[in-house]
This record gives sequence, structure tokens and C-alpha cells, in this order.
Amino acid sequence: MINVFGHKSPDTDATCSALIWAWYLNEHTTQDATAYVLGELNSETRFVLNHWEVSAPELLPILDAGAQVVIVDTNNSQELPENIADTEVIQIIDHHKLVGGLETVGPVNITMRPLACTATVMYDLMGAHAENLPREIAGLMLSCILSDTLEFRSPTTTPHDKDIAEKLAMSLDIDMTKYAAAMFAAKSDVSEFSDKGLITMDSKKYDVGDKNFRVSVLETTTPQTILDRKEGIVDAITQCIAEENDVDEVLLFVVDILNEEATVFTYNDLTKQVVGASFGVTVESDTEVLPGVVSRKKQILPALKL
Amino acid sequence: MINVFGHKSPDTDATCSALIWAWYLNEHTTQDATAYVLGELNSETRFVLNHWEVSAPELLPILDAGAQVVIVDTNNSQELPENIADTEVIQIIDHHKLVGGLETVGPVNITMRPLACTATVMYDLMGAHAENLPREIAGLMLSCILSDTLEFRSPTTTPHDKDIAEKLAMSLDIDMTKYAAAMFAAKSDVSEFSDKGLITMDSKKYDVGDKNFRVSVLETTTPQTILDRKEGIVDAITQCIAEENDVDEVLLFVVDILNEEATVFTYNDLTKQVVGASFGVTVESDTEVLPGVVSRKKQILPALKL
Repeated sequence: MINVFGHKSPDTDATCSALIWAWYLNEHTTQDATAYVLGELNSETRFVLNHWEVSAPELLPILDAGAQVVIVDTNNSQELPENIADTEVIQIIDHHKLVGGLETVGPVNITMRPLACTATVMYDLMGAHAENLPREIAGLMLSCILSDTLEFRSPTTTPHDKDIAEKLAMSLDIDMTKYAAAMFAAKSDVSEFSDKGLITMDSKKYDVGDKNFRVSVLETTTPQTILDRKEGIVDAITQCIAEENDVDEVLLFVVDILNEEATVFTYNDLTKQVVGASFGVTVESDTEVLPGVVSRKKQILPALKL
Repeated sequence: MINVFGHKSPDTDATCSALIWAWYLNEHTTQDATAYVLGELNSETRFVLNHWEVSAPELLPILDAGAQVVIVDTNNSQELPENIADTEVIQIIDHHKLVGGLETVGPVNITMRPLACTATVMYDLMGAHAENLPREIAGLMLSCILSDTLEFRSPTTTPHDKDIAEKLAMSLDIDMTKYAAAMFAAKSDVSEFSDKGLITMDSKKYDVGDKNFRVSVLETTTPQTILDRKEGIVDAITQCIAEENDVDEVLLFVVDILNEEATVFTYNDLTKQVVGASFGVTVESDTEVLPGVVSRKKQILPALKL
């Protein structure tokens, strides 16, 4: 049995592309596969699974040494189970930069493309099989593209991602804009999440100089609901730093999907310093609005400096 | 201009797959590309280029920071130019295990497949364009497959590599077995190479426990011509270890292509120890014959232990 899973803090692409690839292996190869996730699902992903009537993947159990593994939507060992080095990684499908932490025992099947989401890479890998997807698999694929591109607003979007999304929407006969709006509304309803849950929902560790950051993003159509919880969130950040040995600071970006801007929390000297240096702004209050910034991959991580 | 190149100690696959991919980029994309090599060509590769009337790639000049790079036939930063981290790697095409040393600045196009050689991966990537290759490109591709599979004798060979080779040989209307024999005879003529040249001709650094090894392979149809030079080669090994800071020992395997066995030099205590432990043999003389062993990737490196 092959274990298929994406990164910690699972989002729609990590979760659904694991489901898509497990389906593909089961349906079109001789291999048996099961999709898993590495953490709690966010409200967008729950909406997507519910909409397409697909059961949520179970939490990945502790893997035996030598277990066969397919990694999707990351190639970063920090975002994977601790014992990933003891497993047999047979395939990696991803769309991020090569991070350089992962080794494999033998030659491996790796496909990484500079596209907006993992599902688009999978569409291409499937060849003719992609023309005849079951409704729920096509729906998951479309959801991954809309989620990772923020309905084509993100600068990570390529014409190829958009083409595939339009093809899928047509085959599904759904109104893509309405469906995306419903996804983003679901993502924006974070009432069920604790302040700590908001920080780790979509979060990646990233080193800047000698500091270890946790760079968290909350994509929303209603940023004010999050900004209203600022005090509690800052308390949760302080607690998170105290609990995690390898995190010096949390940078939280609240991305306003519709207005295409980010508000970053600048609640102390270090956050003020890094945001000022990275985005060329003079930070004076405990939040800073960054117009046009929506993508961690293309606009936030490459800019970060001390 | 995109710089396309393979690993240090260039062999037929590293050299010809760089030429093949530079041709593909120039012919079928809007990008301009030039193939390079990182060292002196071996006699097999010179024979291949001569046979298909293709000029040898020039030695890679020192790359400017930010230079655009396509890496073929390796993903190991130790086998690449020292300043590879300062370049912009836009694509990697390879068939080795993921080594984990290389990082990229942004999302990148990576295709790694568990096939016998890089040229087979390229054949698949070219899609319909692979059906209509110019004679010399098809010839280089066939040469890569025959070289890396030792004409399908190596356990790295997959049915897919063999299929592609047969298809190419048919389209070229050549006798594959005769052509492979001529390639291997050219490879076996090492009279022009110094003893030191023999050690580095096809050599990869590899760590075993706390020791850094250089694992060198000489594939030949006439092993005796190399064994006759044993004394000089052992002197050259001693000198190589003294000159290279990060090499504790050289393991030299003389692979007899036709009889499908390797003779490894066991000229001191450490080489005797590692060969004994790795292959379950009691080493008594200064060479040891290992029946059936022909592949560094599948049979030598995975076995090595102290």
C-alpha cells in the first residue's frame, strides 16, 4: 500500500492532490494507494470535500521504516513526517522551489513544474486519462487551481493553470466564479478556529539570516473578522514561540483576496524590522498594509530579509 | 543563453544528453541554449561524437551569478560547478536518486525518472517531437542508452529503455549490436589515458560512514589491459588521496562488460575491509573479482559499508 500525502498544515491543494493521485494510482496503475493528511483541515478544504461528496483523508499514521510513500505539493523535509528519511519515497509531484533537504534511497520519479498548483502538474501527468475524469476528481482538481491561484488573482497563476481550470469547469458545467466565491467564503469563516489554530492553519517555516520564522498566511474575503481578534492572536503568537524550540518569530499575513492586499502583524521590534526591510516601508503601527501582496511563494518569501 | 551541462567526469550520457537537450530547446522552444561539458571526454564519448559527426561541447566557462542553467544527468551539487548555487537553475532532467544538496531560487522544472539513462527521460519529455529526430540526435540518444545499460546487460535497464533503443536503431537502420561493440571497443582503448586519468574518468564521490570515498568505474571489454597497469594505478590512487582534501580512499572497479563481472582494487587494509564487508567476501589478494557486478548505481553504491 502506497501512502500519498502533502505537507503539514494541509490546504486544499495538499489535501485534494493527495486524493487525486491516490485515485489515479488505484484506477490506472497496478498499485494500491491511500491518501492521508498531516493535520487538521481548514474550512475551505472541508467545504470542497463536502461539495464534491468526497470523504476527508485520515490523519497519516506513524509510518513504518521502508513504507512506500508518494509526496505531493512539497519537497521540504521540514514539512513532512519526522521519519520521512526512513521511508521509501517512490514519487514526488510538486510545484515549489527545490529546497534540498530530502534524499531518496534509490532513483525516484520526480515531477516538479513551475505551475500554480500540484493538481495542474497531475493533470499533465495523466495524459489522455485527464480527458475522462470522474466528476468528483475533476471537481477536486478545479478546486486546487482556484484555491492556489485565488481564482487567477495570484501572480503564481500561469496561462496553463487557467486553461485547465476553464476546461474542467466546462466539463463540470459549473459557474467557476460563483463556486470560487463560495470556496473563499468558506475559507473566510474562521469562527471555529482558536487564535492558535489561525497561526498554524497555513504556515511554513522559513529561515531569514540567523532567524527562524514561521510565515503564516490567512486568505480571506473578510479580513476585518481576523483583525478584530488581533489581541488574542498576538498572545497566541507569543505562546507559539515559547513552545516551539526552532521558531524565533511568527509573521502573520492576512491576505484580502478581493482587494488583493495583505495586512501583516507588526506587533514588536523584530516584526517591524523585518517587514520594514523586506517591503521597503516604515512601520509605525502594529499592522501594516502591503498593497498587491497576495502570494507567499512569489511575493513574501523572496522579499524577506532582516 | 541557457547553459546545458551534466556532471563532472563526463560520460556518454552526460555529454550527449546535454547536446540533445540544447538541440531540443533551440529547435522546439523560443529559448537559445548551448551544451557544455565539465571535463575531458572519455574515448567512448569521443567515438560516439565522431560517428554521428557532432562537435564535442566546449568546456563550461565560469558561470556568472544568475546565469540560466539546465542540469542533466545529475542532481548532486558535488558533481557540479562550485558556484552552482549562485546560478538560476531552470530545469533538471535526471535518472539518479535525489541527493538533497541542490537548492533553487524559485519553482523549477524537474523531471527525474527511475530509467537507465537521461536520454530516455528526454525522449519521453519530447512527446511527438521524438518521432521525428534528426539522424545525429537519434544516434546520440541511442548511444546514451547503449552506454548506460552496457547494451542492456546492466540491472539498471528497464523495458522502456530497451524499447526506445530498438525504435531508434530501427529508424536509423543500424545494427545495434555491432554499433554497441564498436562503442565498447573505443571505451576499452584507454592507452591515451594516464594512470590518474583512469581513476577520474568515471568517478563519483560517495560517503560511507565517516569515510569519503571516490568510487571509480572503468567499463571495458579488455580488463587485462587495465589490470596490467595495476602498479601505476595504485601509485596514482595514493597521489589522488594526498591531493584531494575530501577523499579518504579510492575504490576502483574494472567492469568486464562481456563477462559481466567487476574486479576491484584491494591494495590496502581499508579497501580490503570495505570490499569484504560490502560484498560478503574474504579479500586475500590485491584484487577481488565480484561476479555479476556491473552497475555502480544498483550494485556497488547500495552495497557499500565499512
